[in-house]
Amino acid sequence: MEQIKVVIAGPRGRMGREAVKLAEETPHFTLAGALDRRNGGSKLSEIGEGFSSEARIYEDIKECLFETNPDVLIDLTTPETGMYHAKTALEAGVRPVVGTTGFSEEDLKELRELAESRGLGAIIAPNFAVGAVLMMKFSQLAAKFFPDVEIIEQHHDRKLDAPSGTGLKTAEMISEIREEKQQGHPDEKETLEGARGASYNGIRIHSVRLPGLVAHQEVLFGGEGQTLKIRHDSYDRKSFMSGVRLSAEQVMKIETLVYGLENIIE
Amino acid sequence: MEQIKVVIAGPRGRMGREAVKLAEETPHFTLAGALDRRNGGSKLSEIGEGFSSEARIYEDIKECLFETNPDVLIDLTTPETGMYHAKTALEAGVRPVVGTTGFSEEDLKELRELAESRGLGAIIAPNFAVGAVLMMKFSQLAAKFFPDVEIIEQHHDRKLDAPSGTGLKTAEMISEIREEKQQGHPDEKETLEGARGASYNGIRIHSVRLPGLVAHQEVLFGGEGQTLKIRHDSYDRKSFMSGVRLSAEQVMKIETLVYGLENIIE
Amino acid sequence: MEQIKVVIAGPRGRMGREAVKLAEETPHFTLAGALDRRNGGSKLSEIGEGFSSEARIYEDIKECLFETNPDVLIDLTTPETGMYHAKTALEAGVRPVVGTTGFSEEDLKELRELAESRGLGAIIAPNFAVGAVLMMKFSQLAAKFFPDVEIIEQHHDRKLDAPSGTGLKTAEMISEIREEKQQGHPDEKETLEGARGASYNGIRIHSVRLPGLVAHQEVLFGGEGQTLKIRHDSYDRKSFMSGVRLSAEQVMKIETLVYGLENIIE
Amino acid sequence: MEQIKVVIAGPRGRMGREAVKLAEETPHFTLAGALDRRNGGSKLSEIGEGFSSEARIYEDIKECLFETNPDVLIDLTTPETGMYHAKTALEAGVRPVVGTTGFSEEDLKELRELAESRGLGAIIAPNFAVGAVLMMKFSQLAAKFFPDVEIIEQHHDRKLDAPSGTGLKTAEMISEIREEKQQGHPDEKETLEGARGASYNGIRIHSVRLPGLVAHQEVLFGGEGQTLKIRHDSYDRKSFMSGVRLSAEQVMKIETLVYGLENIIE
Repeated sequence: MEQIKVVIAGPRGRMGREAVKLAEETPHFTLAGALDRRNGGSKLSEIGEGFSSEARIYEDIKECLFETNPDVLIDLTTPETGMYHAKTALEAGVRPVVGTTGFSEEDLKELRELAESRGLGAIIAPNFAVGAVLMMKFSQLAAKFFPDVEIIEQHHDRKLDAPSGTGLKTAEMISEIREEKQQGHPDEKETLEGARGASYNGIRIHSVRLPGLVAHQEVLFGGEGQTLKIRHDSYDRKSFMSGVRLSAEQVMKIETLVYGLENIIE
Repeated sequence: MEQIKVVIAGPRGRMGREAVKLAEETPHFTLAGALDRRNGGSKLSEIGEGFSSEARIYEDIKECLFETNPDVLIDLTTPETGMYHAKTALEAGVRPVVGTTGFSEEDLKELRELAESRGLGAIIAPNFAVGAVLMMKFSQLAAKFFPDVEIIEQHHDRKLDAPSGTGLKTAEMISEIREEKQQGHPDEKETLEGARGASYNGIRIHSVRLPGLVAHQEVLFGGEGQTLKIRHDSYDRKSFMSGVRLSAEQVMKIETLVYGLENIIE
Repeated sequence: MEQIKVVIAGPRGRMGREAVKLAEETPHFTLAGALDRRNGGSKLSEIGEGFSSEARIYEDIKECLFETNPDVLIDLTTPETGMYHAKTALEAGVRPVVGTTGFSEEDLKELRELAESRGLGAIIAPNFAVGAVLMMKFSQLAAKFFPDVEIIEQHHDRKLDAPSGTGLKTAEMISEIREEKQQGHPDEKETLEGARGASYNGIRIHSVRLPGLVAHQEVLFGGEGQTLKIRHDSYDRKSFMSGVRLSAEQVMKIETLVYGLENIIE
Repeated sequence: MEQIKVVIAGPRGRMGREAVKLAEETPHFTLAGALDRRNGGSKLSEIGEGFSSEARIYEDIKECLFETNPDVLIDLTTPETGMYHAKTALEAGVRPVVGTTGFSEEDLKELRELAESRGLGAIIAPNFAVGAVLMMKFSQLAAKFFPDVEIIEQHHDRKLDAPSGTGLKTAEMISEIREEKQQGHPDEKETLEGARGASYNGIRIHSVRLPGLVAHQEVLFGGEGQTLKIRHDSYDRKSFMSGVRLSAEQVMKIETLVYGLENIIE
């Protein structure tokens, strides 16, 4: 596999730390530098995060990209910084892979035009968990043939909101391809309120919260005489790293902006 | 195994038909007769239900019990008839196994006294599915160690009520041994109403309804770093027959009334 | 939806009987006739199978197609007859949907040429269970991103062969797109022989056989920090009918031969 | 709840570290001291393990027990040391809770006699995961009613042995109460060797190994028309701590030796 030279922005964050380790351990990745709000001038190995890389840390993105001349900028910072980093990278001829949310329609339009005018790839992925993205994609495909579907998402009991973001996203994606329909018996009755869960365009979503759980989701389809279940279990933040690696590889092969990992998974 | 002579009441009903087949196929059961509202005087093999037994059908319970002198009366009729049959059987020295609901506290008291005064066993079981009964019993035991629990019951979409009877019964049984507690994060918020399901004393119950499903239930317990799941899948009415067989065997060994299969499963 | 005129071959077989009911109940299907080895001249409603259709039964395929002039021939007979029926249908300008196995490469070539020369669709589907076909297709897609995969198939204990046909087919389809790899720890050791299951190009297959089970399969993918599971449960022969309906609809839109339901599920 | 004064042996081990945290965080536990091979004289908070407790570390068990006078010694050291610690604790009037393996029949006999002669409780638990212990116990109970059972255990792919210890232990416990029987069809045939898994007295065990998995086990029972599944998922070493807490509480209430957590879970 061809060698890819990467710079990582946000190396001390939860995701960034894993990304540095990924780059250190992936033979076809060369870690050329890091972009941080502090520690400028130090080596990654010197900042007490357990890194072994001798790559230098920069505080200024332009200086960083100019001096290290990478193929790809992997940005795992914050929504505020992500747009600025993506734009600056493209202007410097570097392909951005950005893992933050908060991009507006205009932001995406501006980046797409910039990417295409330069003939560069760019990937913005709010969710790097390949398994979760496949679950959503397969669910959308399955709903064509099985319009009756319910979502059961299960998380630890410190989670505040129900349903989960992934649960809602899955229901949205399914809604795009099936007509709104009311599921269950037309005369069904809840003898205890809430038993049938939340409804998103008629798709029922059930949120389970228990200690011990991490992040899990089942999408259950029913048709005459059969059911089809697609389940994703996420046990660890490391699960995001396969998506980061895949994105860094794919961004080298495209010449436009792709939003959402589901769109590079053909 | 010792031979048990049985009479079946309600041989043309859905459960009764399976029970006749069970009695025909179980080597240590002898089918001595059947009790029906019609077909008196015919043989079971003659009424077009596909039975092979030559046992005679009676329309009067006293005549039936007197002439066939069985060990056990298996009653799969209706709530109205069940009490009369149980009482008449005990008075005739026959042990009743009754699969109907609708017994009042006084009914049970009367039958218990009658059974004990005669030294006869009697079993009344609203649910003959051994697997479902074990699921409920294990759930009650597990809740001692894992007080955080949610119930996910799944049925075909022709079912009218949610939650299911088994779901509610499970929550009741768990409530008997754990204190009421509110599960989930104290500040959790439903952004779509109903997402967190119904609440029975703080136990969350989620009801899934889809075509293709039959009758399924998961009871999910969470504790630090682990989860325990107990799941029962019922595919077919035949699942009740193991409970009928077990009851007919156990009723021979007791000299009192037992209400609920969970109480003969030690 | 446009009305589709169908003829069903094999109306007294297990699949054929369900297909007649499907045609009777689907508003956009018109049941124009049936093809059977006996009962020629009778109506479907007259042969004691519980059908309500007045459509006539034929014993000769040419007479049948000539007199009823259908859009589609749904063939649920035997491998021996399937090829002859498919060929005769295409020659008569009728689109065949065939649910039997046993076609050779030459058979398929001959039928494809015939279909294309006439500009007619033809579908041959060894497995009409849409859910099972989706499970296999999704598994193939997922294996691109998660090359570590094991298959757990579960059937009733009257099944003679292990692994199941679907289990093997799934492993074959995955093998087409991933390189052979040995999974598990290189030094792993079975302290009880067989624990790690069968191996098909390094993909582990486990066959569970228990009373009560019907036909189930899980395909389990593992990647760092996550797992993805795709599960199909088939409870009833009716599950095949959604595939028959889909095929009869799709065969009207194509002008070539398609082999395997997975190829009409885009 | 009554306050329990504990001493922990092995505070720097993987289990011991969690146990110190448990004792720090459990309101009705008082951490009176720790027993370690080094750091004698230091406080727990001083040894760089992230502890906050001011409790003193001892290198000599007799000195430790004499000076701290605890109710319970929680021993999470090694098989070699466990026996000596348990014996010394009982002789000093302290109730031991030991989480190591390797006790011989004679060891257990000696400890039991010592415990009973002093009227002290003692618990030796090779497995502190309450959920796993419940799974095994429930499986044993269920096998009485459903003698057909298969075990599917799933672990990460760095595990060397198959089946897992818990898988084998479960099969052993089931074997104790059911007669050996050959499951599956008498004429079943493996077309790929190993498909039907390993056999332990006729109970089939299947071992799945994939990256991403942690430690999971399903025990699946089948009966006519139904299945019963008991599944335990262990995500984290913390799962053992509920068993340690339970043991420290229970050991105060008994006056004999109990071997195996399953025997304090009534």
